Amino acid sequence: MIKSFDELIAKLDGCPLKKVSVAVAQDAHVLEAVKVAKERNIADAILVGDKEQIEEIAKSIDMDLSSYEIIDVKDMTEAAKKAVSLVSEGVADMYMKGAIDTKGFLKSVLDKEVGLRTGKPLSHVCVFDVEGVDQLLFLSDVAFIPYPTLEDKVSIINNTVEICHAVGIPNPKVAPLAAVEVVNPKMPVTVEAAELTKMNEEGKITGCIVDGPLSFDLAICPEAAQHKAGASDRKIVGDADVLLFPDIHAGNLVYKAMVHTAKIVNGNLLTGTKAPVILTSRSDSVEVKVNSLALGAVVADFMKNNN
Amino acid sequence: MIKSFDELIAKLDGCPLKKVSVAVAQDAHVLEAVKVAKERNIADAILVGDKEQIEEIAKSIDMDLSSYEIIDVKDMTEAAKKAVSLVSEGVADMYMKGAIDTKGFLKSVLDKEVGLRTGKPLSHVCVFDVEGVDQLLFLSDVAFIPYPTLEDKVSIINNTVEICHAVGIPNPKVAPLAAVEVVNPKMPVTVEAAELTKMNEEGKITGCIVDGPLSFDLAICPEAAQHKAGASDRKIVGDADVLLFPDIHAGNLVYKAMVHTAKIVNGNLLTGTKAPVILTSRSDSVEVKVNSLALGAVVADFMKNNN
Repeated sequence: MIKSFDELIAKLDGCPLKKVSVAVAQDAHVLEAVKVAKERNIADAILVGDKEQIEEIAKSIDMDLSSYEIIDVKDMTEAAKKAVSLVSEGVADMYMKGAIDTKGFLKSVLDKEVGLRTGKPLSHVCVFDVEGVDQLLFLSDVAFIPYPTLEDKVSIINNTVEICHAVGIPNPKVAPLAAVEVVNPKMPVTVEAAELTKMNEEGKITGCIVDGPLSFDLAICPEAAQHKAGASDRKIVGDADVLLFPDIHAGNLVYKAMVHTAKIVNGNLLTGTKAPVILTSRSDSVEVKVNSLALGAVVADFMKNNN
Repeated sequence: MIKSFDELIAKLDGCPLKKVSVAVAQDAHVLEAVKVAKERNIADAILVGDKEQIEEIAKSIDMDLSSYEIIDVKDMTEAAKKAVSLVSEGVADMYMKGAIDTKGFLKSVLDKEVGLRTGKPLSHVCVFDVEGVDQLLFLSDVAFIPYPTLEDKVSIINNTVEICHAVGIPNPKVAPLAAVEVVNPKMPVTVEAAELTKMNEEGKITGCIVDGPLSFDLAICPEAAQHKAGASDRKIVGDADVLLFPDIHAGNLVYKAMVHTAKIVNGNLLTGTKAPVILTSRSDSVEVKVNSLALGAVVADFMKNNN
């Protein structure tokens, strides 16, 4: 089982080099990530955007553009459309956001003709390598679906479990989180968590083990889980792979609390699409962007071999 | 301004030694915390509970009971009632949970005759000293009020601000948290956060500066806050003291995520009561219990001097 981003990157060694198509590539952090990704054999790139600006930025970060394909499209909407079509046509394996706002980028992802829709709802997964936690943690949804319904939560689980399978976790453990680990009819989140667990037992959610509601410590901390009475009945004992959040506020606050207070390496992807979509935010570091490219490349390889 | 629990404990140096009354004191972790608190001049204690069991446990942790007042009450409900009455009568300064379940303990806190009701709603505050964060963080509510209304949030702010004043933060910055830092009518949490901010500007919430909605990074990370456009208009720029959570799930998940992934020292109190109430959970370490006693002693001293 893969337990770190370094292991994830090492997993790419045997695979044909994947190619990322970057929408509106004139962004210093994105180009730096693309450069590092190529140096580390994680992915090659096609840069779609304003060629002059791309060249200017490349010079400032000491990036040699001679080995990259650059497609000169000045208009941002057109650049995104061109970039995403390269992925849907199979010229590139994954799609990445550059200096375009999230709304415009998502519009290209969802474009009916050249976009990457599958009919499945989209969701977002953030993968954490936390110091002191044995397994990689897949957090969802911390950025995309504000108030997921039960149906949305099933989609989030399915989307996230596919990413786990791609990474090499054949039967991930999914923890629907709450403040408490017992069902309380006054807390709808706990009722839905139990419902998801039941759907998994009945074979309506497959490819994973669902066990909730769970508090955060019982989900990721084996010691805490073992101390609690009744832990022996549980399928998850501090060894959850997937952390499913009640809503975007809980998810986003935990995500940012961990990033800003703990030692964490992370990468993230938009899921539920035909090909991996890298939608890192402006404030994400180059490291996060490189990790996201590595995650995307592993998922692209898995999709190619399984579809 | 006090920035750590060590500074908080040092603040007690000049004050008369406070006394904690412990309900059902036959609990090894609690007795150990009481012992450490006395050694460090944080607080003295009156132990109410099963005397034989208290003596047995004391022996096992090498605790000399000769300097403690012990009141022998075998029945748990009666022990709690006796212990809390010592606080309401002014014999002790604060109240602490021992080997009694939370429900039974709260019943004694809320007892109409001998309890510690003020008429104000109770809430819970958890104080964090996070490595890398300059100020102490006051998280609320992560444990007591499941789904706070706007009115509840005003009470939570008032209760928590009083604790900040006691600790020596005269005008704390209160951040009503959300996934985003702009008001979005589709996210009720952000609308309420803006409403709380307005109430503060209009003088309906006093003794503090409220600014929300805020995402976690903009609340506690000055760098992140300064990078965001528009930060210059904000009253909080990564320097929040109080983190107000949308609901118990968001609060509790963040609280446990931070405790289990970051380097954090913490202590906590029940607030809105006549005297400080220490309601640590069984899984809290001795250190957390000692910190909570120190926090309680500082708050008890403040209450004595200001009421």
